Amino acid sequence: MGVITVGIVGGTGYTGVELLRLLLRHPNVQVSVLTSRTENGRRVDDMFPSLRGHTDLQYSDLNIDELKKCDVVFFATPHGVAMNHAAELLASNTKVIDLAADFRLQNLAQFEKWYGMPHACPEILKDSVYGLSELNRENIKQANVIGNPGCYPTTVQLGLAPLFKNSDALIKPESIIIDAKSGVSGAGRKASLEMSYSENADNFKAYSVGGHRHHPEIVEALENISGQKGVFDYIVFVPHLVPMIRGMLSTIYVDLTDAGDAADLQALYEQFYADEAFVDVMPVNSSPETRSVRGANQLRIALYKPQPKKLVVLSVQDNLVKGAAGQAVQNMNLMFGLTETSGLEGIGLLP
Amino acid sequence: MGVITVGIVGGTGYTGVELLRLLLRHPNVQVSVLTSRTENGRRVDDMFPSLRGHTDLQYSDLNIDELKKCDVVFFATPHGVAMNHAAELLASNTKVIDLAADFRLQNLAQFEKWYGMPHACPEILKDSVYGLSELNRENIKQANVIGNPGCYPTTVQLGLAPLFKNSDALIKPESIIIDAKSGVSGAGRKASLEMSYSENADNFKAYSVGGHRHHPEIVEALENISGQKGVFDYIVFVPHLVPMIRGMLSTIYVDLTDAGDAADLQALYEQFYADEAFVDVMPVNSSPETRSVRGANQLRIALYKPQPKKLVVLSVQDNLVKGAAGQAVQNMNLMFGLTETSGLEGIGLLP
Amino acid sequence: MGVITVGIVGGTGYTGVELLRLLLRHPNVQVSVLTSRTENGRRVDDMFPSLRGHTDLQYSDLNIDELKKCDVVFFATPHGVAMNHAAELLASNTKVIDLAADFRLQNLAQFEKWYGMPHACPEILKDSVYGLSELNRENIKQANVIGNPGCYPTTVQLGLAPLFKNSDALIKPESIIIDAKSGVSGAGRKASLEMSYSENADNFKAYSVGGHRHHPEIVEALENISGQKGVFDYIVFVPHLVPMIRGMLSTIYVDLTDAGDAADLQALYEQFYADEAFVDVMPVNSSPETRSVRGANQLRIALYKPQPKKLVVLSVQDNLVKGAAGQAVQNMNLMFGLTETSGLEGIGLLP
Amino acid sequence: MGVITVGIVGGTGYTGVELLRLLLRHPNVQVSVLTSRTENGRRVDDMFPSLRGHTDLQYSDLNIDELKKCDVVFFATPHGVAMNHAAELLASNTKVIDLAADFRLQNLAQFEKWYGMPHACPEILKDSVYGLSELNRENIKQANVIGNPGCYPTTVQLGLAPLFKNSDALIKPESIIIDAKSGVSGAGRKASLEMSYSENADNFKAYSVGGHRHHPEIVEALENISGQKGVFDYIVFVPHLVPMIRGMLSTIYVDLTDAGDAADLQALYEQFYADEAFVDVMPVNSSPETRSVRGANQLRIALYKPQPKKLVVLSVQDNLVKGAAGQAVQNMNLMFGLTETSGLEGIGLLP
Repeated sequence: MGVITVGIVGGTGYTGVELLRLLLRHPNVQVSVLTSRTENGRRVDDMFPSLRGHTDLQYSDLNIDELKKCDVVFFATPHGVAMNHAAELLASNTKVIDLAADFRLQNLAQFEKWYGMPHACPEILKDSVYGLSELNRENIKQANVIGNPGCYPTTVQLGLAPLFKNSDALIKPESIIIDAKSGVSGAGRKASLEMSYSENADNFKAYSVGGHRHHPEIVEALENISGQKGVFDYIVFVPHLVPMIRGMLSTIYVDLTDAGDAADLQALYEQFYADEAFVDVMPVNSSPETRSVRGANQLRIALYKPQPKKLVVLSVQDNLVKGAAGQAVQNMNLMFGLTETSGLEGIGLLP
Repeated sequence: MGVITVGIVGGTGYTGVELLRLLLRHPNVQVSVLTSRTENGRRVDDMFPSLRGHTDLQYSDLNIDELKKCDVVFFATPHGVAMNHAAELLASNTKVIDLAADFRLQNLAQFEKWYGMPHACPEILKDSVYGLSELNRENIKQANVIGNPGCYPTTVQLGLAPLFKNSDALIKPESIIIDAKSGVSGAGRKASLEMSYSENADNFKAYSVGGHRHHPEIVEALENISGQKGVFDYIVFVPHLVPMIRGMLSTIYVDLTDAGDAADLQALYEQFYADEAFVDVMPVNSSPETRSVRGANQLRIALYKPQPKKLVVLSVQDNLVKGAAGQAVQNMNLMFGLTETSGLEGIGLLP
Repeated sequence: MGVITVGIVGGTGYTGVELLRLLLRHPNVQVSVLTSRTENGRRVDDMFPSLRGHTDLQYSDLNIDELKKCDVVFFATPHGVAMNHAAELLASNTKVIDLAADFRLQNLAQFEKWYGMPHACPEILKDSVYGLSELNRENIKQANVIGNPGCYPTTVQLGLAPLFKNSDALIKPESIIIDAKSGVSGAGRKASLEMSYSENADNFKAYSVGGHRHHPEIVEALENISGQKGVFDYIVFVPHLVPMIRGMLSTIYVDLTDAGDAADLQALYEQFYADEAFVDVMPVNSSPETRSVRGANQLRIALYKPQPKKLVVLSVQDNLVKGAAGQAVQNMNLMFGLTETSGLEGIGLLP
Repeated sequence: MGVITVGIVGGTGYTGVELLRLLLRHPNVQVSVLTSRTENGRRVDDMFPSLRGHTDLQYSDLNIDELKKCDVVFFATPHGVAMNHAAELLASNTKVIDLAADFRLQNLAQFEKWYGMPHACPEILKDSVYGLSELNRENIKQANVIGNPGCYPTTVQLGLAPLFKNSDALIKPESIIIDAKSGVSGAGRKASLEMSYSENADNFKAYSVGGHRHHPEIVEALENISGQKGVFDYIVFVPHLVPMIRGMLSTIYVDLTDAGDAADLQALYEQFYADEAFVDVMPVNSSPETRSVRGANQLRIALYKPQPKKLVVLSVQDNLVKGAAGQAVQNMNLMFGLTETSGLEGIGLLP
């Protein structure tokens, strides 16, 4: 296969620059279009000096004709953008990977409720594929439109999936509690008092305790993974903000059934992910740290049973990599028949 | 009453210097002895320049005769020190406030299991009082020996106490999950690779998931508050380390009974703490931040019901103040009949 | 003297809330008016929960008649506000303390050049007093309008002043290089991409190397302190941004004359500040840390001679306290004949 | 050329793990030996989970016979180790790259003064090459022993070198002032109170103002670059500690001669580094940030003339990469005739 030409819509945010960090070093890819509503004509390495010496790319206004020439277009935009351009791109055989929420939820009512707008292309949504690479690999290979998962939902799905791949019910689905913690970069690159240094450094808090957009995504995804409808509606999901730039850890509490209590869950997880390059089941008694995946397309898991019939799953990733741009590249690799790990072999930055 | 003379054993750690920060400005107190095993003869403000201009105190070796002249001695030491000196001090009518664990657990077997040594003075322990000021005030006023509570247990007890002060059972005790997060200063002031800057900055992790010393303290304390034995043995407690200096937030998940679900819990909490200067029940939909209590002897609480019959309690404090030195001073005020808030009126440092 | 009634204009920024932290605990003061352009009617402790339990104050729109009832009004606003209200307040015998730049520069051309507007009340400016408390105490006591110094200029003036109080010339004024470093709170509380957490954490940079507003203030102040005109025009001042909330350190490099090289500068500094509560000349070989003054109205100085005839002055303060709100309160104390340290005795928060 | 076999002595420190991060992904290299005094038999990815999935290497005791089989051995140890093993390795045609100070200073008296021990192999030192890759490339290609430069000296040399490559004297050498700032990882990975999180977070200070080991290295290196002896003895070098993990910025102040003032220094620098992959002269008015080189083998420079005849050079790098492990790999590439950028093309992690 020749070089894959890539367009990125929305190249001034953190997922945009992270896509560039990965794609500019990807052996099979040429980034040919990079758009911005505000920076037309500016060199991207003027805005992000970390890219100096690696690219001459300039931002351009979103020009659909230019994007149509690409093999694939990544939308690193807020929700509501990709769904307005997907049809035209598909008509030109350009694939679409949306890093926002336009193609994550099949439930249109939930989409409208949480994102405050009707969906612009329900038919395309129906054919789109949810891009949790490890759990949906075969569909992704055939997909033309990918809804790249939310960061929190990625930690939860990969953290719980093995529990549902058993003939017996191992857990009580209604007991799931997700206490999630994220670095500040998850909120994006924007002028915001709430995200300012002096408001977040040396501080810790919960947020969106009353309801977070990733809740319905987690519910729908767990229904699909488990094949059980309705039983996840009452999971509890409480996100917190950590004074760090990158990194996400979800501490997931689950009540085990008798079968789950009796099962060798460590072995179950290790087998389930044995062939996965980007999911690491750590040894018993490990404590996964966010810095162990800083900058890497990697999710690490550890299991604990602190009490009888109580399972604690610790699931960490870099929210900008496996939780966003890295997984998007992983999906691109799958869609174009490339080696799945291509461009994603970098080792995390520790310390 | 005249000036209260104070001794501090172990004045080189973070709780020691925090005691000094509070006591050197306390209107009714004179710190007359400050001991250190390693810094005998050194001025304390040479080690802690923040104290320059506020004191001429020098460290001395631990001399029990000097300590006996004090009205009260604070032990800001590791566990295992206070219990070896309590008897002699009590014999001289010197009161004892231990900031470590020697007088927190009445259960001797638990003490020995978690702290790795037999208790040196079980009889004194029996007469000692657990110093959770708000929940144990009358006993504290009469006490000669105080076991100052652990930092995590303080957030849990004040976060849950109102739920037990009702004729009906409001919660299912066995359902309690405590997902706790602490700043790094909780680990103390010491040479330690694990606590080094480069190992903790821009990083997040759980620790001691398999078991933490504060677990048995939480269990025993909840038994005393609720009057129910045995039902808290299976609570889950998972602490995490936040890249910040001070601050602690416990996110506590509880299953409500029908009665609990029907109750006005916000009102219950507000009434329960209506007269408390140092416990703040925040309005509905608040998100308590650790920085809102930075340096202050204050604990703030918010309540959420994200799902039917599920209660989430958010409980924040400064681990070095309400979680340690501040509560110790509060207990001293109670023991000596001073105004409870004396020396503790400082406003938190925000930002 | 009775209680002093205080108004604060601009109570939603960091210097505003810091004024409240200090003034709400000040024994001689009653804050009676607190204004905000955007938060009229909102309780201040709703915006800053650290104040919960300490005040019932609400924000109001700026109402000059209400402010006129105050004994003193602090302007914790951007530049350009105080100068438009000073005349009316003075006419009602209300004193004015401006924490912005309206009354810092006597040179009108410099003011207009650096702040982009003509001065609104040059006659009042002429009678106003520059509020560097230690160096201008007697004038401050008589003043009706105070220009509270900028944060960087405070570290420089107190760091260099003793060198000019000698019959011989000790330094070469044209050699002064100020390499200054500030925490992020110095940029204020505002929605700003540049000040966001993810742009500043784990990062360090210089800024405004081509020119900073505090440069002309430093020049004018040094001229006044030394009585020498024109010789400071070519000092070099390079500020840097440190990933911390509060704190400022200026490293000042000066070439010594032969007389300066021969002098006992440590003794000179110690004598010069011997009676000052808020300036601390540390012992030889000290390394002043910003955390040693965190939250305290204190500036600490250390001196080094790393090479013959080269002096290095290290000067640290909390930019929000001695560099802003604390010095403003110190000036208020002087203006109203109160004990200079009143309300400012708090010990810094370490760690 | 076949695969180059590499040994790393001292694989538990930050430069050791950074070498692994780079070398495990290097296309021409096989790491075959990794030693540790304390971790013999332990898997390296057990200590550094960021390496999980990338290597099966285990630590071994230092066995000189195993190291002799390597083509090159990196010493990521404290000073005093490499010089005791260099002779034996050289005898087996194994090249040596020391990341510590054993082969940085040709002046034996200076070495002994600053490092507290006599040099163990002065003859080998004489033939060793100082590994500032860009300034010493031809010698490095022929070298068998490399003294990899200190982190601070790298920023200074690359920051000043173009100024000496002119027929006219552009600067006054005795005027040089280096105000340097480093992240905490520069102090290494060790149990140390001084380097603990709670002592460094939200804090800033100068250190070693009275004298730092990198001072003589800077002096000797500038003498070599400029060909001028004696004129750099009186430069001033003041390092500071920034609360960040990685990153180093030196702000260098220089007095210009008339010729220097007249020269186009921006053009001079751009030409000097035009062909260098790892030195980036930024455009006029740039502000190099440490995060722009986080994890990258890159040094960025900006120039300012804030006053007539005063030059300010800003020079940033990642202290663990271009300041240590990255430059060591760059030197290895040169020594073995590999593409100089091989294994070093990674883009910095921003944010």
